[in-house]
Amino acid sequence: MKVAKFGGSSVANAEQIQKVANIIKADPSRKVVVVSAPGKRFKDDVKITDLLIEFAGSHQRKQFEQSEKTLTIIMDRFKEIVDNLNLHTSIIDDIKQTIEEDLNKDLSPNQLLDAIKAIGEDSSAKIVSAYLQHIGIDATYMNPKDAGIYVSNEPGHAQLLPESFPIIKKLRDIDKVVVIPGFFGYAENGELVTFSRGGSDITGSILAAGTKAELYENFTDVDSVYAVNPTIVNNPKEINVLTYKEMRELSYAGFSVFHDEALIPAFREQIPVCIKNTNNPDSPGTMIVSERDARDNCVVGIASDVGFCSLYVSKFLMNREVGFGRKLLNIFEDEDISFEHAPSGIDDMSVIFRDHKFTPEKERIVIDRIKNELHVDTVSIHRDLAVIMVVGEGLVNTIGVAARATSSFSKARVNIEMINQGSSEVSMMFGIHAEDIDKAIQSLYHEFFEVSQKVEEAETKILT
Amino acid sequence: MKVAKFGGSSVANAEQIQKVANIIKADPSRKVVVVSAPGKRFKDDVKITDLLIEFAGSHQRKQFEQSEKTLTIIMDRFKEIVDNLNLHTSIIDDIKQTIEEDLNKDLSPNQLLDAIKAIGEDSSAKIVSAYLQHIGIDATYMNPKDAGIYVSNEPGHAQLLPESFPIIKKLRDIDKVVVIPGFFGYAENGELVTFSRGGSDITGSILAAGTKAELYENFTDVDSVYAVNPTIVNNPKEINVLTYKEMRELSYAGFSVFHDEALIPAFREQIPVCIKNTNNPDSPGTMIVSERDARDNCVVGIASDVGFCSLYVSKFLMNREVGFGRKLLNIFEDEDISFEHAPSGIDDMSVIFRDHKFTPEKERIVIDRIKNELHVDTVSIHRDLAVIMVVGEGLVNTIGVAARATSSFSKARVNIEMINQGSSEVSMMFGIHAEDIDKAIQSLYHEFFEVSQKVEEAETKILT
Repeated sequence: MKVAKFGGSSVANAEQIQKVANIIKADPSRKVVVVSAPGKRFKDDVKITDLLIEFAGSHQRKQFEQSEKTLTIIMDRFKEIVDNLNLHTSIIDDIKQTIEEDLNKDLSPNQLLDAIKAIGEDSSAKIVSAYLQHIGIDATYMNPKDAGIYVSNEPGHAQLLPESFPIIKKLRDIDKVVVIPGFFGYAENGELVTFSRGGSDITGSILAAGTKAELYENFTDVDSVYAVNPTIVNNPKEINVLTYKEMRELSYAGFSVFHDEALIPAFREQIPVCIKNTNNPDSPGTMIVSERDARDNCVVGIASDVGFCSLYVSKFLMNREVGFGRKLLNIFEDEDISFEHAPSGIDDMSVIFRDHKFTPEKERIVIDRIKNELHVDTVSIHRDLAVIMVVGEGLVNTIGVAARATSSFSKARVNIEMINQGSSEVSMMFGIHAEDIDKAIQSLYHEFFEVSQKVEEAETKILT
Repeated sequence: MKVAKFGGSSVANAEQIQKVANIIKADPSRKVVVVSAPGKRFKDDVKITDLLIEFAGSHQRKQFEQSEKTLTIIMDRFKEIVDNLNLHTSIIDDIKQTIEEDLNKDLSPNQLLDAIKAIGEDSSAKIVSAYLQHIGIDATYMNPKDAGIYVSNEPGHAQLLPESFPIIKKLRDIDKVVVIPGFFGYAENGELVTFSRGGSDITGSILAAGTKAELYENFTDVDSVYAVNPTIVNNPKEINVLTYKEMRELSYAGFSVFHDEALIPAFREQIPVCIKNTNNPDSPGTMIVSERDARDNCVVGIASDVGFCSLYVSKFLMNREVGFGRKLLNIFEDEDISFEHAPSGIDDMSVIFRDHKFTPEKERIVIDRIKNELHVDTVSIHRDLAVIMVVGEGLVNTIGVAARATSSFSKARVNIEMINQGSSEVSMMFGIHAEDIDKAIQSLYHEFFEVSQKVEEAETKILT
């Protein structure tokens, strides 16, 4: 059996939901279906979840005129979908009733927000299951509570409780297509609690892991994961297969096809994940698996992200001082700045972290503490750094990849501020000035994806 | 004025001491002279300091027959020098008397060891000053106590006390050549305490800093510092000038011309250091300065060292865990293993440290603690690593150095296990398997010191 999750654009309107139904119909092993809330229908459209958040906010601020207006927009969206799918209007009454019940419960502001946010996915699941029945598929809506998704009571940041898995496993025994709303579960006290934003991916992954599905299909609106950001390189290569680790390294530096946390349940149970396109289901998509044959292409993708900052300290004879590195990182931890990397030389150490966490106030505190507590010779801050990750399972055992990568920077006349290779088995990290990012990425892409392998090998032979 | 320090081989016998005297005579600005204990006269000879340690050991173990035998060898060495220099035998009596006084004092074993170890330098200074007088130079022996070298009471690891400097500065006013034994100072309670082994370099540096000398000359038995280890590359290039920072990075990975700690006083006061050869004083030697023109040669030297070990941990979503890196380093600190580097990826972190500190017992404890306290997915140890440092002040601002370095490894068919660039402003660090070290170093040396710059530039132009 397979678990299929459909994202917001896949359930944005009636036409999209018909595509979803066709996909489910096409493969009887698609038994567990997870849906997001209706997303954008066009570029400047508003997602249902954002409307729900606005509604909950104005209601809590007792701006009832505003909240009624927003609720009308929300209900009109659902109504249009239900009408266009020729479904019974009782679904609309059901959605409205759920909202009213939530408003009348004695909930804390955070609990109410979570309950209202979840209406988008919940309604989506009701509509999709009704439509599947309408076209003759034996389908049923199932609430996450009945599916067994029990979570910690952290509104907006729920974590799955391990006791969920034996209950989830029972979904295998149901002989229907089960449509389950994504994004939320239930705490032990019965309260609805949501995952972090985009959490329908998490629900799908949990259900795939819990049912030990043969495949977790994640339907979105792109044909596949691309080897590089398409806004930097035109028509980049599609990735057919990549490993969990590769996906994780790529998503760290800007690849946002799949929710970070969502990989964990699938990774732990080794469930293969397939990223597919609802609008082009015949395209093979991108498989995410635990192992792949890395002989042909040791580099699978190149990711990049800006907004990094580096703090540099130097102190003569630093490396003879036991505990220096730990003390420096301690200051960052005290000030609640999680660092990304901390490369060190003999008498130097850098700490790399995300720029947005480092306010001028924090900067002052951190620099003062470093000067006063660590008695360093110099301390300096470098902002506007970009990080480039060259990712691939074969990197660690392939001679010459570092040479090809660094030559690419050199050919693009880009100075490398930082190289971190060897700490990860599947990636090489480079730090450069943010302004150089496009030419660096283009040069790397050319080297690893456009230059013929044959030519490369011939050149290597001449050189050696 | 200049401070001139002469190492063990420069005072190993009468012939060498005559060379020392000629060097002092040749430049009247050499006013403060620091001497080591007599070193080896030939390959399998024993250094006086080692004989003194043996003597103190057997004396403390009350093996008096053995200690008497060793003392005879020591005194014969001094006697031979004094006789061959035609000096008065009263010096020998003086040395013998100093030893006897030390033995009769009420000293702890460590204090006695320090007092006896210091006899080598002390006697050297007495002999050299007597010989200078003998050939008509106005010279005088001065004990470190009178010179103002006051230190912490840590036998074998003395640290200079800051109150020394105003006293040392008065040496400028003496109108003679002052010969001072290296390697030791005096604690506040009047006890003699030695620096760490090789500490005559430290004495020289302290005196150069304290007197604000125009130059600190460090006379040894090589013409200069070489760009690379001469046992790996034949007749390597001599380094004419390098900065304190470059020297420090090179000496970290195997360059042992100059004591680590000895650089500090000179560095703090910006006293230039010159490494020269007692046996070839006309050779310009190697200057160590605070700044150099790095335009012509951005790489000044390539150092390498073996005996490193790497511990690798991976944990899915590690980088979301605030404090993970700090906790890992804390375990190393608790177990008293000072780490060299701790490069980290997204979900991986490595800790690089010296192999010899990591006994099988420590390995078991560290791995157990990492598993139990940090709940990592994997932890593994890699031994037999070598570290290569490519060092130069120009590195940080020169495009293409990383490409040239990594290509050199690639041409030598050497896999790079680790690259750490950017944390230090003057070096690039590479980790490789120890067995590959010779071919890697030879290839790097070829790239940075043998290939003509002109050809390189032409190639770069074609590529861009």
